[in-house]
Amino acid sequence: MKLTPSPFAPEAFPQLPEVQGLRAATGSRGFYARRGVERDDVFLFVFDDGTTCGGVFTRSLTASADVRWCREALQAGGGQARALVVNSGNSNAFTGPKGVLKNDATLAALTTALGVNREECFLAATGVIGEPLSDPNYVGAFVPDLARKLSVPDWERAARAFMTTDTYPKGAGQVADIGGAEVRLAGIAKGSGMIAPNMATMLAYVFTDAAVAPALLQDALRTVADLTFNSITVDGDTSTSDTLMVFATGACGMAPITSRDDQRFIAFSDALLAVCHDLAMQVVKDGEGASKVATIQIAGAASDASARAVAVSIANSPLIKTAMAAGDANWGRIVMAVGKSYQPVDIDKLAIWFDDVQVAKDGARAPDYDEAAASAVFAKPEFRIRVDLGLGSGGATVWTCDLTHGYVDINGAYRT
Amino acid sequence: MKLTPSPFAPEAFPQLPEVQGLRAATGSRGFYARRGVERDDVFLFVFDDGTTCGGVFTRSLTASADVRWCREALQAGGGQARALVVNSGNSNAFTGPKGVLKNDATLAALTTALGVNREECFLAATGVIGEPLSDPNYVGAFVPDLARKLSVPDWERAARAFMTTDTYPKGAGQVADIGGAEVRLAGIAKGSGMIAPNMATMLAYVFTDAAVAPALLQDALRTVADLTFNSITVDGDTSTSDTLMVFATGACGMAPITSRDDQRFIAFSDALLAVCHDLAMQVVKDGEGASKVATIQIAGAASDASARAVAVSIANSPLIKTAMAAGDANWGRIVMAVGKSYQPVDIDKLAIWFDDVQVAKDGARAPDYDEAAASAVFAKPEFRIRVDLGLGSGGATVWTCDLTHGYVDINGAYRT
Repeated sequence: MKLTPSPFAPEAFPQLPEVQGLRAATGSRGFYARRGVERDDVFLFVFDDGTTCGGVFTRSLTASADVRWCREALQAGGGQARALVVNSGNSNAFTGPKGVLKNDATLAALTTALGVNREECFLAATGVIGEPLSDPNYVGAFVPDLARKLSVPDWERAARAFMTTDTYPKGAGQVADIGGAEVRLAGIAKGSGMIAPNMATMLAYVFTDAAVAPALLQDALRTVADLTFNSITVDGDTSTSDTLMVFATGACGMAPITSRDDQRFIAFSDALLAVCHDLAMQVVKDGEGASKVATIQIAGAASDASARAVAVSIANSPLIKTAMAAGDANWGRIVMAVGKSYQPVDIDKLAIWFDDVQVAKDGARAPDYDEAAASAVFAKPEFRIRVDLGLGSGGATVWTCDLTHGYVDINGAYRT
Repeated sequence: MKLTPSPFAPEAFPQLPEVQGLRAATGSRGFYARRGVERDDVFLFVFDDGTTCGGVFTRSLTASADVRWCREALQAGGGQARALVVNSGNSNAFTGPKGVLKNDATLAALTTALGVNREECFLAATGVIGEPLSDPNYVGAFVPDLARKLSVPDWERAARAFMTTDTYPKGAGQVADIGGAEVRLAGIAKGSGMIAPNMATMLAYVFTDAAVAPALLQDALRTVADLTFNSITVDGDTSTSDTLMVFATGACGMAPITSRDDQRFIAFSDALLAVCHDLAMQVVKDGEGASKVATIQIAGAASDASARAVAVSIANSPLIKTAMAAGDANWGRIVMAVGKSYQPVDIDKLAIWFDDVQVAKDGARAPDYDEAAASAVFAKPEFRIRVDLGLGSGGATVWTCDLTHGYVDINGAYRT
């Protein structure tokens, strides 16, 4: 089906900084071409020797063969990376032993073409779940050609190559001064449905020429993931392929960050956060059928974890998401979602705001409730739903989109 | 808005047995009349002295004032019941101290008009959450008139009086031989959105002329609720008002059931189960916008609880529910929902059937997979999704409906 572009689609793909120490190529396996669509469906990144990496993956217990390989490689290779291959068209999830054969074939092609170690090569795939693989070499066969074409990354082209129901390619970049070194970060992401915390990425990759020890890279990435990709939700469904990885080539020439106490670790983490936040917002704004995006902000909870559970309960409620779509400021449904979070709540202390319009106070409708003002907030494309539980100091922020006819259409037609 | 009737709507309201020992009346407070709709919006049931009762209520921590009263009355009155008043139009949830005043006014009207004890009177309300109450006596004021009109229940009229987004009134009955006594059961229910386990009733009441001690009535009701109303889901949202109650007048003349070892306790529980199952199926079939209903059957789980978590994960997945709506047998999404249940799973043992068509086996697509046969199942209005986890002997069954454009429409327009 033809997808209607998200109203949040940027006018153009952003200009991303030139990250040193890597080369890339994109290509077409013919998956989309066979369906009459002119676009790439596979990309390869190759990293200079000494590149470190970190990864956060789906918690799904039916994770794809690619995700299982990446976990294994991260362990076995000690966080060293030389190559990344990602394809769209088939998720290689629930493909049985053949899914592993596909990985083996791709990895063999990479080690041969690039002369690198197997456990330094990372893979991902996105598309329909459970579609059987006819030829296990369906990605590996294209590696030699991609390896010949390696050059400075065309970020937009790579971002387009792994889109599925995305309506626009997603990229974000930062140039940061880290202890006097000019460090560059460029990230690309895809994802628009099956998006929920734990984790919500779909696939996202950040590339930087910073030099960071693997353990610290992993540390920073985990913290950042919780604040970004694990804090967005489109439909509460969790993909079998969710992957967020960061690759640090060290090519900017800085001395490596090897300690958590190094001030530069904070600076690097902040830059990584900025890129991941930008990408995560782009994912939720491209949520299938989304016409509105809300920031769900919880304060006064018994703990941060409790605040997060309340935020997710609101963010995933179909009743709230349909009210958002219709511009109906039905704040009673926020009360409902707080109640079904089964978190510590004192109903008489509950307060709710839409942007700065207070709609509920002390366990009842706010005395100066103004339906017109509340409705005006819900008519905006972006707004904030703020809940104060009045119990403690726990807080959390989560982002969600509305549930529209578009979501129903897209997900009825995805395989066709 | 005008609601399109569910395709599952029965041709006529069923004929329900004449339960002895109770009288009823319905009336109009003018809530719907003011909106140009000719229908009742309040009903009263009055029970003979000696009537026992049991109740199961929402787990929501922002439960309505009515639910909080019922819990209190059930404790204070020791499971004795003389009256039940239910109104539609306002849920009396999140209405602050005024919500309690409304209950007080209604209870005062009941004790005066009927000469019964306050803690033997049960209340419920359904409608928009958080709508403030102008006059706390907005239900109590109608009690004297209802009390004057008491007679043999008009079940259909009562079932219509508490409808909100329901597209048809829901009733179910049984006449059972229990230890030689002819026992009658009649039940009515309302509910079509904000339906999810814990619990899914919305409001449901079963009336019987059996004689059952309160503790046993409560016992039977809890077991039956888990197998019926707590096993259906429309949207995963949980109401602040969910209530299931049973009233047993004892007027059939049987000796009271006072022991769990009494064979008649099993017979009575079975009859109660039949009525509640019928009502629960009517609720899920009237799910907002529903065009299809699926039975989710899990076998081979590590435990019954684990099976239930997997079933609910499937039943609440928006991606599966939209695929159902579109008739797209996208079985990979079942794999996704199993994975995100975070229950014990061995992907290589997973098997999935749509009715009797096996679509997945040993962790991959079934070798003899037949897309046409799978699609034919998803084209049916009612079908079964069966998952065998191949791990243990845990099992569970849950019912769900599809997610259609109708759901988006209804829930964008509910307050208007």
